[in-house]
Amino acid sequence: MTSSDGSLGVGLIGTGYMGKCHALAWNAVRAVFGDVARPRLEMLAEVSEDLARQRASAFGFARATSDWRALVNDPAVDVVSITTPNAFHPEMAIAALQAGKHVWCEKPMAPALADAQGMLAAARASGRIAALGYNYIQNPAFREIARMIADGAIGEPIQFRAEMDEDFMADPGEAFTWKSEASSGYGALDDFAVHPLSLAHRLFGKAERVFCDMAKPYETRPLAGGGRRAVETHDTANVLLRFSGGLQASLLVNRSAWGRKGRIALQVFGSKGSILYDQERMNEIELYRADGDPARQGFTRILTGPAHPPYGSFVPAPGHGLGFNDLKVIECRELIRLIRGEPASLITFEEGIEIERTVHAAARSFASGGWEEVG
Amino acid sequence: MTSSDGSLGVGLIGTGYMGKCHALAWNAVRAVFGDVARPRLEMLAEVSEDLARQRASAFGFARATSDWRALVNDPAVDVVSITTPNAFHPEMAIAALQAGKHVWCEKPMAPALADAQGMLAAARASGRIAALGYNYIQNPAFREIARMIADGAIGEPIQFRAEMDEDFMADPGEAFTWKSEASSGYGALDDFAVHPLSLAHRLFGKAERVFCDMAKPYETRPLAGGGRRAVETHDTANVLLRFSGGLQASLLVNRSAWGRKGRIALQVFGSKGSILYDQERMNEIELYRADGDPARQGFTRILTGPAHPPYGSFVPAPGHGLGFNDLKVIECRELIRLIRGEPASLITFEEGIEIERTVHAAARSFASGGWEEVG
Amino acid sequence: MTSSDGSLGVGLIGTGYMGKCHALAWNAVRAVFGDVARPRLEMLAEVSEDLARQRASAFGFARATSDWRALVNDPAVDVVSITTPNAFHPEMAIAALQAGKHVWCEKPMAPALADAQGMLAAARASGRIAALGYNYIQNPAFREIARMIADGAIGEPIQFRAEMDEDFMADPGEAFTWKSEASSGYGALDDFAVHPLSLAHRLFGKAERVFCDMAKPYETRPLAGGGRRAVETHDTANVLLRFSGGLQASLLVNRSAWGRKGRIALQVFGSKGSILYDQERMNEIELYRADGDPARQGFTRILTGPAHPPYGSFVPAPGHGLGFNDLKVIECRELIRLIRGEPASLITFEEGIEIERTVHAAARSFASGGWEEVG
Amino acid sequence: MTSSDGSLGVGLIGTGYMGKCHALAWNAVRAVFGDVARPRLEMLAEVSEDLARQRASAFGFARATSDWRALVNDPAVDVVSITTPNAFHPEMAIAALQAGKHVWCEKPMAPALADAQGMLAAARASGRIAALGYNYIQNPAFREIARMIADGAIGEPIQFRAEMDEDFMADPGEAFTWKSEASSGYGALDDFAVHPLSLAHRLFGKAERVFCDMAKPYETRPLAGGGRRAVETHDTANVLLRFSGGLQASLLVNRSAWGRKGRIALQVFGSKGSILYDQERMNEIELYRADGDPARQGFTRILTGPAHPPYGSFVPAPGHGLGFNDLKVIECRELIRLIRGEPASLITFEEGIEIERTVHAAARSFASGGWEEVG
Repeated sequence: MTSSDGSLGVGLIGTGYMGKCHALAWNAVRAVFGDVARPRLEMLAEVSEDLARQRASAFGFARATSDWRALVNDPAVDVVSITTPNAFHPEMAIAALQAGKHVWCEKPMAPALADAQGMLAAARASGRIAALGYNYIQNPAFREIARMIADGAIGEPIQFRAEMDEDFMADPGEAFTWKSEASSGYGALDDFAVHPLSLAHRLFGKAERVFCDMAKPYETRPLAGGGRRAVETHDTANVLLRFSGGLQASLLVNRSAWGRKGRIALQVFGSKGSILYDQERMNEIELYRADGDPARQGFTRILTGPAHPPYGSFVPAPGHGLGFNDLKVIECRELIRLIRGEPASLITFEEGIEIERTVHAAARSFASGGWEEVG
Repeated sequence: MTSSDGSLGVGLIGTGYMGKCHALAWNAVRAVFGDVARPRLEMLAEVSEDLARQRASAFGFARATSDWRALVNDPAVDVVSITTPNAFHPEMAIAALQAGKHVWCEKPMAPALADAQGMLAAARASGRIAALGYNYIQNPAFREIARMIADGAIGEPIQFRAEMDEDFMADPGEAFTWKSEASSGYGALDDFAVHPLSLAHRLFGKAERVFCDMAKPYETRPLAGGGRRAVETHDTANVLLRFSGGLQASLLVNRSAWGRKGRIALQVFGSKGSILYDQERMNEIELYRADGDPARQGFTRILTGPAHPPYGSFVPAPGHGLGFNDLKVIECRELIRLIRGEPASLITFEEGIEIERTVHAAARSFASGGWEEVG
Repeated sequence: MTSSDGSLGVGLIGTGYMGKCHALAWNAVRAVFGDVARPRLEMLAEVSEDLARQRASAFGFARATSDWRALVNDPAVDVVSITTPNAFHPEMAIAALQAGKHVWCEKPMAPALADAQGMLAAARASGRIAALGYNYIQNPAFREIARMIADGAIGEPIQFRAEMDEDFMADPGEAFTWKSEASSGYGALDDFAVHPLSLAHRLFGKAERVFCDMAKPYETRPLAGGGRRAVETHDTANVLLRFSGGLQASLLVNRSAWGRKGRIALQVFGSKGSILYDQERMNEIELYRADGDPARQGFTRILTGPAHPPYGSFVPAPGHGLGFNDLKVIECRELIRLIRGEPASLITFEEGIEIERTVHAAARSFASGGWEEVG
Repeated sequence: MTSSDGSLGVGLIGTGYMGKCHALAWNAVRAVFGDVARPRLEMLAEVSEDLARQRASAFGFARATSDWRALVNDPAVDVVSITTPNAFHPEMAIAALQAGKHVWCEKPMAPALADAQGMLAAARASGRIAALGYNYIQNPAFREIARMIADGAIGEPIQFRAEMDEDFMADPGEAFTWKSEASSGYGALDDFAVHPLSLAHRLFGKAERVFCDMAKPYETRPLAGGGRRAVETHDTANVLLRFSGGLQASLLVNRSAWGRKGRIALQVFGSKGSILYDQERMNEIELYRADGDPARQGFTRILTGPAHPPYGSFVPAPGHGLGFNDLKVIECRELIRLIRGEPASLITFEEGIEIERTVHAAARSFASGGWEEVG
């Protein structure tokens, strides 16, 4: 239970890429924002006692365990960060919710829609907060984009384009890993597309129908022990969508795109202007407004600053730049606010399942060769 | 007939946007390249005698006429530049070819595929050169991109993306014009998509199948005389394609994209690297190569220069920049070379009809809601 | 004399880099603008009869000569393009002016100030137009910048920065040439600095005092025949300036700057905004205006178009791009207008000598180690 | 004294812009790096007890005080972060050093050179670590630049340019503050120039001579209570320098540069290539190498990633981006390493005073109008 000073007891499962990111956020959130109580870092779970102890020490957690069930049932733990591989999310999240804990689970909910539905049911039954780690919606730059659209800066949106590309699967000589196994999901479609879809959701609501083409850049990959194995997932996906009201959209994702390191590029065209964004330059927005002297019109490159909350909680000077990890600190504070019953901007299981439903509809479309309703 | 000094007698039909561009090219081609004879600017045709005379004087043509048939039949004319609206291309091109003239016709061949087929038949029957004005393939930057792909700089291509966007239809308050009438074609699909398709053709050959979604950003437009009229064309088109060998591609075109003025953005991802290009910065190429020290890898922004022929025929110093009109001068010289029987890089009716077939297949797909073979 | 139809008889001396550029401009100017008579390309002079004949044929000149004096005295020649190495400018320009011809001489006037003064005296005595080839002031982008400053878009200018960099002298292994001989001038200071100074002149008037530091990146260079020779010119110059009213400025020039191909980068800071420009992206301007919502402020990247005359005389669509050679066509028309007694924007010998005076004052400063008045 | 587990007891004086930045770093350093003990946040000093208590709670410090002398003398404090206005640095740093504490003081040391010298003397006498907050040298991007130069990627450096610009003084209507009082220092020269000088120091060593021109964009500023007051500091400074070996450099700083928010732009030209950097895009480096096929040369835009340590301690994926505050975390770990007697990269008082000596020499040059030796 939340302690008398309002502080939350935190449990962290997993300490890889996103696990460390959660840990950094829990350590920083009070110092950055000042308006939330300092979380009590109660317990950390890893696959072995040794690793758990080592990481607990590094990340400032009081206790370590190799038994995640002990963690989710620990009375001092109020909220559980789940940062393990996607396949583990359902079991862990449901157990934590059933133990009466709030859950902060990395995206996506689960590889299979049925599992995600189970998670949502558990969340509803528990009455606890069940939130997902869609950090990009927390970027002050993205929040400003949402404000621009809401206040009509570009008029009525007429088209949306998104691309998400990285190159960690680009090398055909790289050995076969679980990322190429069908059990990991569809490939880039669920690995990547959920991120731009989370952004689209916040701007335009639910996707209504989708069409999808997926491809395997490399049919086989070498096995570590020699020989080659057929690749089962698709490292690229081209998705066409229609959102409510008929808004036309496209979503191109590629995890074999040499040179792209963390690209999430958005283009929003409206009746009075346009907005551009690229996550690789996460402190910038480009805005075109079709008004005034045509000789002076162009895309305005806006550097984020204190005019774009909560940037100013990190640095009082504009243009000095936030980093990837700072987004998780913002998300962490939103979570705390949500748990406290305050207004907050976060993607919960309720909204998250809509995003994943879009992904599954896209996969159906790839099989059927036609448009599929998201449902 | 070509005169004894090898010079060509030129007839020009139309003096608007592309007509002037042709005229400038005919005036400049010998001075720029030196290796072709100075064309004889014999005759210019416009809708009225007055306008024809005025433009003939400005553009340096010896004679003016309001009768394009007189022009295509004039014995001093060897080659006819056709730069009138697309609907006029078939009649004019066929007449010129039947009169034994070479033809240099602006893209696309014709709104209807049957008409384009008629033009091709006339070209074959005539034995004359019948070329199309696809100027972007002439850019030294694009030629370098083609060379990069051919020499394996990025390995095996695995995905291609193209976008072409302008904003001349972006203002919903702009009055209804012929561009919104069904008789003008499909909309952005034929107006724009043929350009990036011409580039794709040169890099990857023929598209095999396509899927297409089109949209009307604005359902109606105001009439000049009051009231509103329903828009019949689609100002945006999202097209997914597969080229031979299964290469996955996407093509997004939008003529209502505020802020985009002459964007033709290409992304080519390969097994060893990537290439980026944007026509709005037509003197630049970006190349990523996945070799050497990872700490030093990135997209290399290459400024065109004498190392990218025929840039050096315009300016001996790199990075000083060619302009849009210079591409037509290069195309003009390619045409002269082709007429002289020399190797040249130009899109003739034979290749052009393949591009247009892709467009018509895309339109069929929009109607059917499924993939369509280009055929 | 100008013929009855108002056309000018043109003589061209020199057919290298800028000679060809002049030739292209004389060929294109009427077709582009329509409002000037077609020049008569009367005579071309080169170092040998053969080369002259060959170039005259290529560039469309009626007659060829190896005797430039014959050219400047030819009765059919009204205006003489002088594009030879700088050391030849004084003799040729003075002879042409004394023969009653208008002169269009490439910048700078002469290596020595006394020679430039002689040229100015000859121009004054002749009553003819004596103009210099400062093409960058003709860029529609630059004209818009001048308009921005004039109409107060950035308030009162408070600081100006310019850089001009190329890399043709960057390779230390490149052989010694005349560019490294003292007789060619100071080095980058006169070779480059006059260009940004011409731009500064148009924006802010005369420089009043200067301080200069020059450097030799490489003390010696290899001789073609073996051995090495001491470099006598300075390939870099850092110049600080004050313009009238005390406006603070800096000018950094470097012809050994690897990677820079045609960079002329300007930064103008004002009390209400800022302007950025880079010649390597000559169709773009960046404008920052400190007004409106701070959350929406940033540098606006403006692509030139018909809103920036005379861009529209080349291409009716914005963002399609002019090239380096197009600037000379604009300059050519300005020259014709000036000769016709119409308002025109061109740097004549009167203004050009002020620019060169600044360069010589900078050289004095390098010697004295202190500020020098331009005088 | 450092506790038995090697952890340092930390005291923080000041909680403004950089005070918070220090606090965030002390909170994060162990979780990010794992290889340093978790600091004990012992005591925080602010101007009032109330504010001190509030900030101590927010930043996780155990005790709060309004008496900074109590803090520097507290036995549990091992190291003191000094983040107060520059004028307070000498007294506080000297007291802390005399109390046997290590000192981490924000740059610059002091407005007056004599005071800085006193600080250095105290550091030497104490035998403690006395480090300065020059965070930009900690950027993985900058470290890579240093590596590039050291390993000859661009050959022998021949010229260096730096600019540092922000716009917080750009509005002439902004009221007069202490930043415009002579007691605060020279203006942009000491406020800004020390940052790029710290970078230059790391790349090229000590500056040997300097020339400086400073300007006041606005002669007076409005007083809050009405009327106007003469500005005493210079908001811009143009500095020319020569480093050891004669390397030519320039340093342009402007805190009235509209649109610039956190610009620190570097250009390093070498005999085999060039490097560009801009702090507003702090996760990017541009590298030009003059080798291989000229048709493929250009500036390579490198996104930082795990290949650029210690980026990977923050995020395992490249191109995801560090932020401004992350640099201070790196600096904090370097400080801890230095205190532990391990190799570390930090600017201590010994090096810092050289940077400040350069600034004072520049100020002398502005007065004398000639070059000044740094001494």
